[in-house]
Amino acid sequence: MEKKDLDLRALAERIYALDEKVYEILGSSLGRVYNGDRDYDLNYIVELLESQKGSYVLRDELALIGNMAKTIENSALQAQMMEEYHSIVQMTKKQAEHYTRIEILDEKRAQLNAMPLKKRFSDQDKKIICIGRTYGSGGTEIGFALAEELKLNYYDSAMFAEIMKRMEAGNTTVWQSRNLYQRGEANAPVYRGDPFTEPSKTSLRELFDDFSRNHGLPKRDALFFSQSKMICDIAQTENFLIVGRYADIVLTNEGIPHVNIFITAPFEKRVTRMKEMHPEMSEKEIRSVMKRSDRRHVRDYRYFTGKHWESAENYDLTVNSASYGIAGSVDLILEMLDGDVIS
Amino acid sequence: MEKKDLDLRALAERIYALDEKVYEILGSSLGRVYNGDRDYDLNYIVELLESQKGSYVLRDELALIGNMAKTIENSALQAQMMEEYHSIVQMTKKQAEHYTRIEILDEKRAQLNAMPLKKRFSDQDKKIICIGRTYGSGGTEIGFALAEELKLNYYDSAMFAEIMKRMEAGNTTVWQSRNLYQRGEANAPVYRGDPFTEPSKTSLRELFDDFSRNHGLPKRDALFFSQSKMICDIAQTENFLIVGRYADIVLTNEGIPHVNIFITAPFEKRVTRMKEMHPEMSEKEIRSVMKRSDRRHVRDYRYFTGKHWESAENYDLTVNSASYGIAGSVDLILEMLDGDVIS
Repeated sequence: MEKKDLDLRALAERIYALDEKVYEILGSSLGRVYNGDRDYDLNYIVELLESQKGSYVLRDELALIGNMAKTIENSALQAQMMEEYHSIVQMTKKQAEHYTRIEILDEKRAQLNAMPLKKRFSDQDKKIICIGRTYGSGGTEIGFALAEELKLNYYDSAMFAEIMKRMEAGNTTVWQSRNLYQRGEANAPVYRGDPFTEPSKTSLRELFDDFSRNHGLPKRDALFFSQSKMICDIAQTENFLIVGRYADIVLTNEGIPHVNIFITAPFEKRVTRMKEMHPEMSEKEIRSVMKRSDRRHVRDYRYFTGKHWESAENYDLTVNSASYGIAGSVDLILEMLDGDVIS
Repeated sequence: MEKKDLDLRALAERIYALDEKVYEILGSSLGRVYNGDRDYDLNYIVELLESQKGSYVLRDELALIGNMAKTIENSALQAQMMEEYHSIVQMTKKQAEHYTRIEILDEKRAQLNAMPLKKRFSDQDKKIICIGRTYGSGGTEIGFALAEELKLNYYDSAMFAEIMKRMEAGNTTVWQSRNLYQRGEANAPVYRGDPFTEPSKTSLRELFDDFSRNHGLPKRDALFFSQSKMICDIAQTENFLIVGRYADIVLTNEGIPHVNIFITAPFEKRVTRMKEMHPEMSEKEIRSVMKRSDRRHVRDYRYFTGKHWESAENYDLTVNSASYGIAGSVDLILEMLDGDVIS
């Protein structure tokens, strides 16, 4: 018998003994986990310890013993049993490591989708957080509050639209064109990226104009490429949080580390919130605009990535804002980001 | 002019002054946010402060000023500007509160989907965590490690299957029937809830047997109802973590508070992991079994809830295990649960 087998036999004996003791103390109607003859059970446990599938079986059998041990009323006795239980779990974990250490971690993804609590951002990297969100989920509010708490620069769709406008206008500053707009002295630009007031139709003439201005690229592509460039430029110089604009796609493509969070809430709950925010609109209109907005996001995301926009697997973390509310979601994410590491 | 208007005017003046000062210091090519005549701009800012939509416009304009202020190189000056910036943001938030305090929080949901960091569990409530997971995402491993860290009882599909078997068998204990199975001395029960070894076909005879045993209920319903009862019983007496079994549905229906977490990872990443775990199977088989398993979950979840299983809106939080790995996901969730509150 080799050294390794001896160790496994010793571990099996501890497991068998724990089961026996817990049963002695409780006299539970659940019976014992191991109730055959001792030698047979020890061989069986060693077998479990030796194989991959077995390690899962053993884990559950240990969990059953542990669950029972936790019901021991005498607290000193309970502590003693639990200490032995946890020690055994640690040992079986170590034993199982060489074949159960099959990771789900995607190294490449992990490098890109940096989570500060793992200190994955290097010193040279800017701290970047991308927030995707469904309309009405409060994602923009959560993003703004997070940027405020983490002292990160903040960008959202509306701000990007203004900056794009400035770039198009050349020597006119963003703020000038915005102020002109607010005063009714300029052609109305798209209102602040809000789907509720965005014009949904474009005239044929405008489409032709766009086409020639964008050097033959479809407008969607041209806009995406300009914004991508802007996001990459910002990523060189600033720590920032960005809401929307599919910034995650751009940063992932460019190999720039970032944390990628998606905020959503049940559709009906989002409708209720939007009704409160837009009392001037009928519920029917709101539902129609929201569905259109969700569909547009899904369509564009698929166009640029081939993936489904709302799939949790695209993000590091997905938060249901209906479970925590706006302030609660901010707290939750801060907790998770472990504020002191990012700031 | 009323008191309130005066206050808003004073706030507008601070905002205008901050923009002016930041621009003076930086001489930025970005221009100023407010660059019209002073009175006109102040009236404009007051207008923004007074309306709901305006408060969003103002928030972005402030963010632009803040982003610029952060680039001031003189650190004393930067600190001074940022202090004023944060103070203004707080004041505008307060001002906007009465119309922008439109919450996404679902009170009912929040009460049920308790998150310890908000201390939503009452003293009488047991601490319960439900983990849903896609196959191969490592969700079961993450769940077990979490239970271990949080000192919660642990249950999963395999353990439930054993307990159900015991209930069906009457006076035979789970462990006896399991040991008999492991020794090849009993009819093989379904192997530990693992879809890779679960028999996928049921004979007509077995279906008839099931039908009469379940008092005419389809087997899926009968199983669901027995398990629901068991979950509710456990919820009366234990703090526990349960992986799978749609425990979230049951607990929500019964109004029992719990934290509901979903673990997933990109399909291809899960395939890779399953290939490592099941070297005896071909990739084609693995893909087929995984797709079948995903489909079955989707179908059953829709049957019992009318909702899509993988939708993030069903859960409090969804974690992409490929972003953090198994140990990293455990750390992340622990961080978020703020361990000391739950234990």
